[in-house]
Amino acid sequence: EAKFEPLFKKIDELKPRFIDRLAKAIEIPAVSSDESLRPAVVKKAHYIADELKKLGFTDIQMKELGTQPPPVNDPNLQLPPVILSRYGTDANKKTILIYGHYDVQPAALEDGWDTDPFKLVIDEQKQLMRGRGVTDDSGPLKGWLNVVEAHRELGFDLPVNLVTCFEGMEESGSVGLDTLIAEEADKYFKDVDTVCISDNYWLGTKKPVLTYGLRGCNYYQVTIEGPGADLHSGIFGGAIAEPMVDLVQVLSSLVDSKGKILIDGVMDMVAPVTEKEKELYEKIDFSLDEMNAASGSETCLYKNKSDILMHRWRFPSLSIHGVEGAFSAQGAKTVIPAKVTGKFSIRTVPDMNSDKLDKLVIEHCQKAFSALGSPNKCKAELIHNGDYWISDPFNASFTAAAQATKTVYGVEPDFTREGGSIPITLTFEKELKTNCMLLPMGRGDDGAHSINEKLDLSNYFGGMKTMAAYLHYYAAAEGK
Amino acid sequence: EAKFEPLFKKIDELKPRFIDRLAKAIEIPAVSSDESLRPAVVKKAHYIADELKKLGFTDIQMKELGTQPPPVNDPNLQLPPVILSRYGTDANKKTILIYGHYDVQPAALEDGWDTDPFKLVIDEQKQLMRGRGVTDDSGPLKGWLNVVEAHRELGFDLPVNLVTCFEGMEESGSVGLDTLIAEEADKYFKDVDTVCISDNYWLGTKKPVLTYGLRGCNYYQVTIEGPGADLHSGIFGGAIAEPMVDLVQVLSSLVDSKGKILIDGVMDMVAPVTEKEKELYEKIDFSLDEMNAASGSETCLYKNKSDILMHRWRFPSLSIHGVEGAFSAQGAKTVIPAKVTGKFSIRTVPDMNSDKLDKLVIEHCQKAFSALGSPNKCKAELIHNGDYWISDPFNASFTAAAQATKTVYGVEPDFTREGGSIPITLTFEKELKTNCMLLPMGRGDDGAHSINEKLDLSNYFGGMKTMAAYLHYYAAAEGK
Ligand SMILES: [Zn+2]
Ligand SMILES: [Zn+2]
Ligand SMILES: [Zn+2]
Ligand SMILES: [Zn+2]
Repeated sequence: EAKFEPLFKKIDELKPRFIDRLAKAIEIPAVSSDESLRPAVVKKAHYIADELKKLGFTDIQMKELGTQPPPVNDPNLQLPPVILSRYGTDANKKTILIYGHYDVQPAALEDGWDTDPFKLVIDEQKQLMRGRGVTDDSGPLKGWLNVVEAHRELGFDLPVNLVTCFEGMEESGSVGLDTLIAEEADKYFKDVDTVCISDNYWLGTKKPVLTYGLRGCNYYQVTIEGPGADLHSGIFGGAIAEPMVDLVQVLSSLVDSKGKILIDGVMDMVAPVTEKEKELYEKIDFSLDEMNAASGSETCLYKNKSDILMHRWRFPSLSIHGVEGAFSAQGAKTVIPAKVTGKFSIRTVPDMNSDKLDKLVIEHCQKAFSALGSPNKCKAELIHNGDYWISDPFNASFTAAAQATKTVYGVEPDFTREGGSIPITLTFEKELKTNCMLLPMGRGDDGAHSINEKLDLSNYFGGMKTMAAYLHYYAAAEGK
Repeated sequence: EAKFEPLFKKIDELKPRFIDRLAKAIEIPAVSSDESLRPAVVKKAHYIADELKKLGFTDIQMKELGTQPPPVNDPNLQLPPVILSRYGTDANKKTILIYGHYDVQPAALEDGWDTDPFKLVIDEQKQLMRGRGVTDDSGPLKGWLNVVEAHRELGFDLPVNLVTCFEGMEESGSVGLDTLIAEEADKYFKDVDTVCISDNYWLGTKKPVLTYGLRGCNYYQVTIEGPGADLHSGIFGGAIAEPMVDLVQVLSSLVDSKGKILIDGVMDMVAPVTEKEKELYEKIDFSLDEMNAASGSETCLYKNKSDILMHRWRFPSLSIHGVEGAFSAQGAKTVIPAKVTGKFSIRTVPDMNSDKLDKLVIEHCQKAFSALGSPNKCKAELIHNGDYWISDPFNASFTAAAQATKTVYGVEPDFTREGGSIPITLTFEKELKTNCMLLPMGRGDDGAHSINEKLDLSNYFGGMKTMAAYLHYYAAAEGK
């Protein structure tokens, strides 16, 4: 649309400054999982806070979350701060909470990076930026700052109020953030109308997407215990009931090789696929080849696009992760492990009830074990769970983002879900009693947690333009 | 018998000297698995060689076995020597090869020992000696030296010639010994009539035993491979064929929770139980309580003595040891392992054919995997094997040892087999074209590879008297 022309032009004009802002961020090795790098994480928080101040953000608060809970080497290790700030406080405008994280995954040249991971490098030929955090999540976070700067340079008012919630522990479980959100729900976050999270990716490399659903995850373990200590298979083999033999029987009763969950009642809880939903899947830009490229194999269980995506996003799955307590090294050890724990998890989707699922799973394991007639002891239990998230892809926020995408990229975005979980999404919705949208900036092949993490320049700038247009479309929508 | 009275009396008289000889050996931490302790292992070899020399052994040769093959930190690490020596070279006497090992298992006070493991401690109340190696295998090895010394003190001739083969790598796989035995079969070991191995234990704590059989062990692995790298279960779960899911299906097809091997054809190879054999088992001093005490649980698969023992000694068993490549730590990791390897082994017995067994096992795994219809790849293979050993418990050597046991302990020994394997037994029989006997000195509760390893004084002295009487009974038997 013509009205965005000056704004988009300004964003392009400020390219050197926007790249420099990201480069300075990338140079700080803010690895939240590395205790020794905690000072760098804090340094990056202050770098961002300084930028916010320069750009006119107000009420900047570095929220301390206390010491990091165990396991930790330094019992006094402080969690990095959450950066709260505001841009605009006009009661007549809508307020959007922008979530992002400034910490990054570990990275080292020795892992196989082509260049120093903590130095932003521009590949002019491929027109991309490389460095740890460019796409996850420093690029998107800086994107919001840049959008504000572009408005200021033009003397434009922002059409909405912004509230930032930038954390420094996302790559390490967002420790402490749930509590902060709950505490600030009626305070700092009081007037928030909607939440926008830019911390995921396009499904592929060409088509922009908006993400309206995430699966949950219930993680279980089943422990089978027999002898008082590990035994020698030469001495006891044949006369003792072996826990590992019982365990493989129980684990083999959970799911078949076609991915079908064999636990009674689980599939009954899954919401049926609607016709409207089917259409959404059919429109998505994706192929079996892309799936095979991503998995590095041709071991996909389905051949057509909709089946593959539905089984990744909207059907539950059961994965067996491993066994604790058994022999797990190279070579040959003739041990009868005394106590073994099988680990598996179920990805959950609407309308599965988490508590009911736990009951079905635990009863199933107990029943499968009982059927063995083993003298060993068996205990099945939930280790942790996180609920699924699903939003209405046709609400005001998604509609605004879809319009923005169309304006910038010239295509309707694909409406996607994801198979993994981003627990903070649920926390925002629950505590702020509002809705969330996932607005990705990068592409599916950015290598967020891998070597040579990159962000295409077209995604950085296209992403910022989409963010900018989103603010305007959302401001113009019904309500307030 | 009266003729042994002076000899037995002398053995008792020399108690302080015999304990001191063992104490000096225990003080040398000859842990063969610890590269940094290799000098101690060599030092202990020289200590023994010096003792042999003082006692009149001749032709003492410290046989070097070259460098230790990988995996090893120091590529120039020398293997400890095998000590060959002779006592007597009378062509009119029979020649007994005595096997023993001077290396020991690792031990540290921190593991939970009541006293320094490398200091021999006498518990006067319990009338036992404690220290690493007292029962495995320094006590029995020194026992033979003591028997010679008792004869010398009395001015008695030994009724047989002795040849020693004392190695220093038994606890680390007897590396290099097979080759040495093959090389010396027609040289140093040329005139050997029989082999006596004192490196095992009574079944229980009260009844002396002679051991005439050992199970073999064929160790297998089955590897299932899918994706190009480990995947995230949130992103791929439900759409990808998971190797771990296939693996638990294959492993669950091998054996049931009652210990029944489910691989077609395996049990058909097992020699039927004879009436004579049944009687041997019924006479053995053993109980379910002892089995439970040994396993630290009440998870035995059988209730009566003969069933328990037969399933430990004369029936095959299949144990599942663990999985390599899957998640094996504490906690919860949402990984889909790309490549997993299940490890299992089968204890073999007469008349199982090792090659045929491999074929049955590998075909079974392939068939079980094929039935899954999985797009993953599966490979089943043998990692290593060692044959079973069975001897005639009524031959001249066993008969002499039974007579000796009766003379010393006043009871007929139990004729036992063992579930584990001592591969060197087979090597001696094959290369020297003779037979072997296992003549244990210690008790079943000595804790050979555990903390607080002990040897009861009554076993040390009873064992030496049995060894001494055995030499005389064997000398007096038919032949030569
Ligand atoms: Zn992220
Ligand atoms: Zn991340
Ligand atoms: Zn031993
Ligand atoms: Zn041993």
